Amino acid sequence: MQALVWDGSTAAVGERTQPVARDDLALLRVRVAGVCSTDLEIVKGYMGFRGVLGHEFVGEVVDGPKGWIEGWEGARAVGEINFACASCASCTRGLERHCPHRRVLGILDADGAMAQYVAVPSANLHRVPESLADEAAVFTEPVAAAWEILEQLPLGPEQRCVVLGDGKLGLLIAQVLQSSGARVLTVGRHAGKLALLSRLGIETALLDAWRGRARAERHDTDVVVEATGSPAGFRLALEAVRPRGTIVLKSTVAEAPSLDLSPVVIDEIQVLGSRCGPFAPALAALAAGRVRVGELIHDRFDLADGARALERAAEPGVLKVLVDCA
Amino acid sequence: MQALVWDGSTAAVGERTQPVARDDLALLRVRVAGVCSTDLEIVKGYMGFRGVLGHEFVGEVVDGPKGWIEGWEGARAVGEINFACASCASCTRGLERHCPHRRVLGILDADGAMAQYVAVPSANLHRVPESLADEAAVFTEPVAAAWEILEQLPLGPEQRCVVLGDGKLGLLIAQVLQSSGARVLTVGRHAGKLALLSRLGIETALLDAWRGRARAERHDTDVVVEATGSPAGFRLALEAVRPRGTIVLKSTVAEAPSLDLSPVVIDEIQVLGSRCGPFAPALAALAAGRVRVGELIHDRFDLADGARALERAAEPGVLKVLVDCA
Repeated sequence: MQALVWDGSTAAVGERTQPVARDDLALLRVRVAGVCSTDLEIVKGYMGFRGVLGHEFVGEVVDGPKGWIEGWEGARAVGEINFACASCASCTRGLERHCPHRRVLGILDADGAMAQYVAVPSANLHRVPESLADEAAVFTEPVAAAWEILEQLPLGPEQRCVVLGDGKLGLLIAQVLQSSGARVLTVGRHAGKLALLSRLGIETALLDAWRGRARAERHDTDVVVEATGSPAGFRLALEAVRPRGTIVLKSTVAEAPSLDLSPVVIDEIQVLGSRCGPFAPALAALAAGRVRVGELIHDRFDLADGARALERAAEPGVLKVLVDCA
Repeated sequence: MQALVWDGSTAAVGERTQPVARDDLALLRVRVAGVCSTDLEIVKGYMGFRGVLGHEFVGEVVDGPKGWIEGWEGARAVGEINFACASCASCTRGLERHCPHRRVLGILDADGAMAQYVAVPSANLHRVPESLADEAAVFTEPVAAAWEILEQLPLGPEQRCVVLGDGKLGLLIAQVLQSSGARVLTVGRHAGKLALLSRLGIETALLDAWRGRARAERHDTDVVVEATGSPAGFRLALEAVRPRGTIVLKSTVAEAPSLDLSPVVIDEIQVLGSRCGPFAPALAALAAGRVRVGELIHDRFDLADGARALERAAEPGVLKVLVDCA
């Protein structure tokens, strides 16, 4: 089959052995995949991954475990990306996404979805509602990652949240937090991207204008979500959050910046790492139109042009780039 | 009066104008003060403080606001170190220790206690129970700082806690956490210091021996308290804590090390800064002998030799150094 493969120095489309359904693995024909910032970090060295890239996808089930495939053949599905062992202490505790033996689709020891076919544990699959188009369903994974914040932090109208970053993830996080009833301000560098949120009734500010008032508004800023994807984001979050407030860290970057953690101690800040989230509420929010993604799609490429899709996604100002794999 | 003053380049005992009681300020004759690691950081540049050093003390009330002094004259007292404005949004919310206008005894805009006299808001004072000797009561401030962890995190027998650091604060934190019923392991570099805890029934391990097994025990390590006072401590804590676990940050250091925060995101770690804590339970624990401090006192100096006290406290392996100010 054709697949976009990262070999440690180049990302190129080439021939790859087609995976097969066996044990608990289902096989899907990939319809569309999305380029995530994590993919761009991987080709900068993050995680030391080698293999087929891509972890955001919608596919069509073509094969799978006996007794299971009967109900799923031909179904459109999205898949959770952490492949857990199901038997260790973390899994027994219900923390499958933190299984120390996990493989992660297109990120850690598991070939990803920018290919004609992908193999995913059948337990990881979620049916895509008929009303939800591929172009929206392919956002399930990043919307779930945004939703994780609501699982970790109880948010409501009492909370004032600042989302730092108007990239792909920031724009989804802002919508998800707003849906919880929290008061959300999204801060970014791009008027055009922020306008997407303004049209949805979400308050926005340009970074330079906001920095001047961040200190003054600090006592009222309960939560800052760091989704800039830049090492500077954490320092900015520290300036903006109130004492005893919470910084949610969403960015994983390949760099290790120099950081002074003493403000965390002095102001007794809670820093909360936040990664993958639950697919079910994310799918429901997308299907109900509570999270809008149409305007986030900036470009589409065929799988054969997968390498160009990556380059395009890395261009400044570009939001989601999709890869048509069917 | 005589006082140990840090002028930005030298810490020396010299003559200083004696403070006076006025408005809400009480005046105390200092009996004994303690050298804290924060004092040693200050003379390395931390906080840019200038003035009389010292924030751990026991004193005797000699003057104070009318209507108040009548009940307090001659009382032995310890004092909370954050001087709040009592009227801002933080103070109104009950977060006086986070008042943005606060001064902090011997740390920020307020002369400290390594002097013959010290001025402290009367509302900050707590009476020392008669049964509690000066040499134990002077530990109230650091024991309160350890107690802050219990205010922030519900701990009990289900929790396994690792305390990193067998310095002054680490030895107090281990005792305070153990008193909550949590299972505590203290990790340090000094067999002699760890033995103080072993004698109190607290599990200990030498750093080098423990590092080898930290990964294997990680899934069971719910909380890691970073009290090493070293920039390396945070990285060590990240290796030792389980996914979705908590790192409590206690060290404030003048350095800004290079830190890779992606493990915080990937493992969804909660990092909790923790600073000053409540005096009342700390005094009660000291008075009841639930926290033992006698063996932590390694040396005592008269105020006239205050500069030597600082030097002595900075020597490797030295725990608490007291300064007799009366």
